Amino acid sequence: MSSSLIQEVLEPLQSMRLIDPHTHINPHQAASQTLADILGYHYYTELAHSSGMPRQQIEEPGLAPKEKVGRLVPWLRTIENTAQYSWLVEMCQVFFEFDDDRITVENWESLYDRSLKKMQSPGWEQTVLDRSGLDQVYLTNDFDDPLEGFDTKMYVPCLRTDDLVFHLGKAAVRERLQKAASMVPAGASQLKDAIGKLFAHFQKNGVRACAISLPPDFHPAPVSNAVAEVIVAKVFSGQELTACESATLAQFVFWTLAEYCVEFRLPFDLMIGVNRRVYENGVFQGQDLFDTRVSLIQYKVLFNAFPTVTFPVSVLAETSNQELVSYSWIFPNVVTNGHWWYSNIPVYIENDTRGRLQAVPSTKQIGYYSDMYKLEFALPKFAMYRRILAKVLAEDFVIGKRWSVNRAVDLGKLILRGNVEAVFGKN
Amino acid sequence: MSSSLIQEVLEPLQSMRLIDPHTHINPHQAASQTLADILGYHYYTELAHSSGMPRQQIEEPGLAPKEKVGRLVPWLRTIENTAQYSWLVEMCQVFFEFDDDRITVENWESLYDRSLKKMQSPGWEQTVLDRSGLDQVYLTNDFDDPLEGFDTKMYVPCLRTDDLVFHLGKAAVRERLQKAASMVPAGASQLKDAIGKLFAHFQKNGVRACAISLPPDFHPAPVSNAVAEVIVAKVFSGQELTACESATLAQFVFWTLAEYCVEFRLPFDLMIGVNRRVYENGVFQGQDLFDTRVSLIQYKVLFNAFPTVTFPVSVLAETSNQELVSYSWIFPNVVTNGHWWYSNIPVYIENDTRGRLQAVPSTKQIGYYSDMYKLEFALPKFAMYRRILAKVLAEDFVIGKRWSVNRAVDLGKLILRGNVEAVFGKN
Amino acid sequence: MSSSLIQEVLEPLQSMRLIDPHTHINPHQAASQTLADILGYHYYTELAHSSGMPRQQIEEPGLAPKEKVGRLVPWLRTIENTAQYSWLVEMCQVFFEFDDDRITVENWESLYDRSLKKMQSPGWEQTVLDRSGLDQVYLTNDFDDPLEGFDTKMYVPCLRTDDLVFHLGKAAVRERLQKAASMVPAGASQLKDAIGKLFAHFQKNGVRACAISLPPDFHPAPVSNAVAEVIVAKVFSGQELTACESATLAQFVFWTLAEYCVEFRLPFDLMIGVNRRVYENGVFQGQDLFDTRVSLIQYKVLFNAFPTVTFPVSVLAETSNQELVSYSWIFPNVVTNGHWWYSNIPVYIENDTRGRLQAVPSTKQIGYYSDMYKLEFALPKFAMYRRILAKVLAEDFVIGKRWSVNRAVDLGKLILRGNVEAVFGKN
Repeated sequence: MSSSLIQEVLEPLQSMRLIDPHTHINPHQAASQTLADILGYHYYTELAHSSGMPRQQIEEPGLAPKEKVGRLVPWLRTIENTAQYSWLVEMCQVFFEFDDDRITVENWESLYDRSLKKMQSPGWEQTVLDRSGLDQVYLTNDFDDPLEGFDTKMYVPCLRTDDLVFHLGKAAVRERLQKAASMVPAGASQLKDAIGKLFAHFQKNGVRACAISLPPDFHPAPVSNAVAEVIVAKVFSGQELTACESATLAQFVFWTLAEYCVEFRLPFDLMIGVNRRVYENGVFQGQDLFDTRVSLIQYKVLFNAFPTVTFPVSVLAETSNQELVSYSWIFPNVVTNGHWWYSNIPVYIENDTRGRLQAVPSTKQIGYYSDMYKLEFALPKFAMYRRILAKVLAEDFVIGKRWSVNRAVDLGKLILRGNVEAVFGKN
Repeated sequence: MSSSLIQEVLEPLQSMRLIDPHTHINPHQAASQTLADILGYHYYTELAHSSGMPRQQIEEPGLAPKEKVGRLVPWLRTIENTAQYSWLVEMCQVFFEFDDDRITVENWESLYDRSLKKMQSPGWEQTVLDRSGLDQVYLTNDFDDPLEGFDTKMYVPCLRTDDLVFHLGKAAVRERLQKAASMVPAGASQLKDAIGKLFAHFQKNGVRACAISLPPDFHPAPVSNAVAEVIVAKVFSGQELTACESATLAQFVFWTLAEYCVEFRLPFDLMIGVNRRVYENGVFQGQDLFDTRVSLIQYKVLFNAFPTVTFPVSVLAETSNQELVSYSWIFPNVVTNGHWWYSNIPVYIENDTRGRLQAVPSTKQIGYYSDMYKLEFALPKFAMYRRILAKVLAEDFVIGKRWSVNRAVDLGKLILRGNVEAVFGKN
Repeated sequence: MSSSLIQEVLEPLQSMRLIDPHTHINPHQAASQTLADILGYHYYTELAHSSGMPRQQIEEPGLAPKEKVGRLVPWLRTIENTAQYSWLVEMCQVFFEFDDDRITVENWESLYDRSLKKMQSPGWEQTVLDRSGLDQVYLTNDFDDPLEGFDTKMYVPCLRTDDLVFHLGKAAVRERLQKAASMVPAGASQLKDAIGKLFAHFQKNGVRACAISLPPDFHPAPVSNAVAEVIVAKVFSGQELTACESATLAQFVFWTLAEYCVEFRLPFDLMIGVNRRVYENGVFQGQDLFDTRVSLIQYKVLFNAFPTVTFPVSVLAETSNQELVSYSWIFPNVVTNGHWWYSNIPVYIENDTRGRLQAVPSTKQIGYYSDMYKLEFALPKFAMYRRILAKVLAEDFVIGKRWSVNRAVDLGKLILRGNVEAVFGKN
């Protein structure tokens, strides 16, 4: 009975069309071209490497896609238990007419060839979008992205700002900024102006959010122009900053971004808690980890200083979810956002979803984003989330609170899509 | 079957009479006078504010109760999913003959009027007590409370000490202490004497516990009279203390309280982990949050130094529950106490209850307290807890350990009431 | 249906033979001699003490075993709810033909006498091994253990190194090291040589792992011989070290151990997070607790520096499990290991097992070890784990992923035993 009830709640959630509010899609090449684009996703390469596959085997320069897949497949056997593997099989079954439930050294090649034909067929991207029910896909754009050559109504720009906040010490980043803003910032206010130009450029192209990922030890704080002045001059003259100066510069730029979010009326996506390059010999994009010792109390000054900016907050560790629930319950401008990275597996999603639905206003929860690099991933990831959401709605609301199925489904639709439109703006 | 088994365990738990060992009830006005007393509870005002309601709308000076409720009701729509909303509807259904399952702009006014009649009827307070099955309600009394004009057998005094420990730097607090103790403490030993007088006054009036809420960064430690002497003299001469002196004074006063708990044989309720005024523009009582980076290891010195004092400990974050379980399993004087504030929602209560029942001696667990400000809240809050307790007892004990229903119910009764009497003393 | 499915998964897991990869068994006296050996396990003495039993009652010098049990039994009443008590009853039922489900002041004596006969019967140790299905039991050997007089194929040596890393400041430990290594280390390289001799001795005797338990504030780091030289000379000349010097010496010795793990091709078991002697008046072995504020980021340098050493990692707190899952998912040399101490109760085991099975390669998970001091404990502890494992496999894999029962059972067998052999080496 319980499982048929879950099904009853799930069906209308499955058939609704979606907006995916955070991805890493390249809009010029949104869908996969070969199975290597799918299996090359860091979730698979890092798990295969973790199981024993040498990194060099798949990062060899000039490696052909088919050969790359052939080298990865034997390692899949060790990760068949994972949630990530389930996404893979579901993608292959739905998109590539794969009938087995395991990808093996015996069957991968025919899968590869068949999937290649599909991906090379005209309109593959549109096929994936249709089959996945995607109305819009939000991007993660470099601050100097020209934002040209794609439909920004479909692929919605978001201004990613990690480089500005944490990497102005690198000459290449400064050059990109100077080029994008057509100016050489010599001091604090000029740096602000340069950043303002980026916002203006993004706004002209339909930007919906400013976004950043932050390490566990980051503390936002206002920095006066006077204090920033010397540091900005120093870094833009090519001198190396001390660790302390770098931290102050990061705070200055971050605060400046929040100020522009006020001016440009943009939500500021905060993805809190990642340590970069923890495992330096890891595969591409498979080197980052975290430290659970992080608290949203570090963001107290920020949340108080910018009451008109909405902060959709993602936390990396499940141990941070109750803080996120509580801060969203108290601060009008804090909104729960998705289930990020290491927390994006069923056991954590279910627990976190329960906590949020039980204590955060229904209008302040963005249920899910795919974080995908290739379009095909939205389908299995959202499918996983929708199954869990349906289970929680059925158990805690229909059974627990005696809600009608319709009422529970309406709550699910709000979480899945309604709030995305309310927070980031309707088309 | 499982759900009928839960029901079988639940029924005897529901029909038992209760002692509520921690509330904020004003014994001179224990029950609500209007629906505004209920909807004015910070759980509703802060959630409504979080959803977008301007604080000023409900904190306008001179606002009439009915108008206040009328302004809050439209915002309830956004929090129908929350556990807190479920308490509200259950209260209205049980106490005010409310038949709907939603309070809306259409039906609130008749609910308001009908509830007003009930609350104005003679003996409303007793009606609520009877209907809720409350034998005793513990209070949270200011240290200078005269404790007069109410039945201290029914409304049991507890000495709340936050002001003494953390706010002696405020002139108003020092004046209250001087008046209550009839002396002006000029040094450390005199401050101890003054505090001793408070304990004596409370003991004459049937006090059952000393209680305090503590920020995440607090570390109890003994402070010698010699060290305290200068600081006490300084603060009572009206000079401002440094942050370091304030911290030392807090430790000195806190340690003094524990010493008096020995002398007066009182349990010392510790409510660990709240940061005050994190969101300074929040509604009344809706400004506090927390930092999960707190550990009971901070209390090592205290627990070791006072083996004869029982410490019923509440933790604010679910991430602290396993420490609480483990410290209660090891330290004879540490007892688990309720499910506090941000942890007082079903997903956390259930998980925490499981951990406690699986690893802490049955005699060392105080299951629940309501933390209520108005009497009507005990009923839905304890009802929520009893449903969860019955579920855990049915699943983990009757099914999991093949206990008889009676045996499981006996354990539930111990947790719900027996231990309250054992720890705080029988009437 | 679900419960019969769990049973179907459970049966083949129950009938398989086991290797227990971490215990504190004394191979010269592996089984219990009286019920006092079982009830004297710190899990019972500390819970009884926590419930109110004075420590002296059971730590009285010269106390006869039967009298000790008689003094403990009345306190069992208060811990019947605990998982630990369930192990006790299961042991008595399986090994001692105990028919009741409670051990009481009425029935304990006949249980004591009957169990005494069993334990005194010839071949009791073998009986327990057979009944428990144990093929091998790993030990925790002092660094100066002669490793003689027992079958090291059955009772497998593991080199426990806490004393070397944290207690070289104690004269007794230095003397033991000098005797075991037949040399007096006067400097850093000599200390390394001495430790190398221990490894060689252990390797001659079939050692399978180097192991250590670590406090929450420990940070591994390389220390140069030059820096270590002075400190080693100082400590071995009998001078007291400063706290800072002790910490550096601990880092130096720890790093040296990791280097020998490379040379001797041994896994290095890390048991992370215990604070020793937190409750100094606690019963024997019942004084240690923890601080959840620990992170695997502290081990970043170690994991990167020793890619060829496998680190089976145990964490003490459930709040550390997601980090363990994520670090095992990224680092090829990090493996999840069991459910340690305060996390060894069903609610935490179940949640942690789910997380690991959903996100860590199947080949990188060591499901369980008993941590036992007496042989009889393997049976109920592994039984508890197998029931939980079967439940998770049935729910998340057979139902959740539509795996066949056989496929789920194969995964369970890998977790339970296959990975133990793969990580620590086959017989």
